[in-house]
Amino acid sequence: MKLGFIGLGIMGSPMAGHLCAGGHELFVHTRSKVPPQLVDAGAAVMSSAAEVATASEAIFLMVPDTPDVEKVLFGANGIVDGLTPGKTVIDMSSISPLATRDFARRVQDLGCDYADAPVSGGEVGAKAASLTIMVGGSESTFNRVEPLIALLGRNITHVGDVGAGQIAKIANQIIVALNIAAVAEALVFASKAGADPAKVREALMGGFAASRVLEAHGERMIKRTFNPGFRIALHQKDLNLALQGAKALDVALPQTACAAQLMQTAAAHGWDELDHSAMVKALELMSDHTVA
Amino acid sequence: MKLGFIGLGIMGSPMAGHLCAGGHELFVHTRSKVPPQLVDAGAAVMSSAAEVATASEAIFLMVPDTPDVEKVLFGANGIVDGLTPGKTVIDMSSISPLATRDFARRVQDLGCDYADAPVSGGEVGAKAASLTIMVGGSESTFNRVEPLIALLGRNITHVGDVGAGQIAKIANQIIVALNIAAVAEALVFASKAGADPAKVREALMGGFAASRVLEAHGERMIKRTFNPGFRIALHQKDLNLALQGAKALDVALPQTACAAQLMQTAAAHGWDELDHSAMVKALELMSDHTVA
Repeated sequence: MKLGFIGLGIMGSPMAGHLCAGGHELFVHTRSKVPPQLVDAGAAVMSSAAEVATASEAIFLMVPDTPDVEKVLFGANGIVDGLTPGKTVIDMSSISPLATRDFARRVQDLGCDYADAPVSGGEVGAKAASLTIMVGGSESTFNRVEPLIALLGRNITHVGDVGAGQIAKIANQIIVALNIAAVAEALVFASKAGADPAKVREALMGGFAASRVLEAHGERMIKRTFNPGFRIALHQKDLNLALQGAKALDVALPQTACAAQLMQTAAAHGWDELDHSAMVKALELMSDHTVA
Repeated sequence: MKLGFIGLGIMGSPMAGHLCAGGHELFVHTRSKVPPQLVDAGAAVMSSAAEVATASEAIFLMVPDTPDVEKVLFGANGIVDGLTPGKTVIDMSSISPLATRDFARRVQDLGCDYADAPVSGGEVGAKAASLTIMVGGSESTFNRVEPLIALLGRNITHVGDVGAGQIAKIANQIIVALNIAAVAEALVFASKAGADPAKVREALMGGFAASRVLEAHGERMIKRTFNPGFRIALHQKDLNLALQGAKALDVALPQTACAAQLMQTAAAHGWDELDHSAMVKALELMSDHTVA
């Protein structure tokens, strides 16, 4: 197939590479420089998002935030300028589910398909094509895009209609943030109470407290390895999406709001470029005690 | 060995049975009726905790709360009245770690050993002898009691000195409560935003949001199976231990404090006899929306 890809950052570049390696013809556009290995692999560099859309049957987006998706789709020389009926837009960015429904409606009005397919798994998952991918869109759209996104990840779920992928991604980020807070409070408490946090983590891994976060982030808190991983600044953006969405939908998220303030506390001390497991440093500051 | 067991409730009765089945001579005392199957298995019923201690080399406790342990140990006809040097007290109740250190000191002053060994796994784990057991005590005490408690559980960790078992148990209850809140907020948000909560849970099980709580409690929230399990009223007791301990130790636990208030909200509506996964009902009430 002729595929477009817009947004060649640390996630987008390896993802575009996997589509190329899958035997597809690739057309790309980016605000900065296109990675040379993509050009070597045969990707055609276009001068605008509109040109990418003109040349492609399906166009992937992987950009930072809601306003970026809006600009790439509907801004000057945007994707919609190159769309003709029957083409598909697949947004793999993590953005607002409510804005996603609006964008999809405007693209569908042109006779095109729209799927939201945000990912979890970070740079490591993007490089290894092992991303978790949560897809929103109609049944027929999902069946059409599934063979393409299967080149990018292992754990692909069709969650529901357009926007459902973004909703699932926000649910994911809520749980990860609160599980990090859970492990952080437990380890700060245990450590200041005089127990060995490494032994406590080990004891708890066998019971109902077991989680991927206790395993991975708990170890980082004990070993003090706060190089990202997933940066606090990015998780702040995702919790902001959760709280804005909750406001619009009249949902009460007291724990998420508190976790966002703990991340804010970390950011206030310049720790927002550290891994999100460094949220423990906010609780350590508040408790005047370091875990290890 | 000659073993004593005090506290034959829904957890204590099957645990005492496993010690009997392990070939030990058992002496029991309880405020209510001794289960007939324990008598049939050969347990001798004594008229006081002091008599149990007089007859036994090691005495197990499995009672509800800190004041109960204090009364059984030091009250009228309490365990200390029957202790002679070289005997061991093993407290498997879930109580205050700070009180535990005080109780241990007073028992050790009589030339006896003390271990705290609280458990996780509930009635199911007690019956199946599959409990997670977190042990606090000296190395030599742990080595002496380990073959006995190995009859009761599978996942046994020596966490540290006296009190460390209780600290680890509190850390466990903090993480479980906050992981339940995490899943509850995520599912209420996803559901009110229009996604299918069952599909969202399925999508998230493969990524960093994965946990025992997402698996078990998440399913209960979706299927509305709130029969306990572990009752909210009991988890409230454990979070109270966490917050009292945090106050004494100058530890800040903002998320735990908020989770305790969500459980309190559930209790205010008469849901404290439901499984702790029913914490979701508090968030549903606040958000005016039911997950499923």
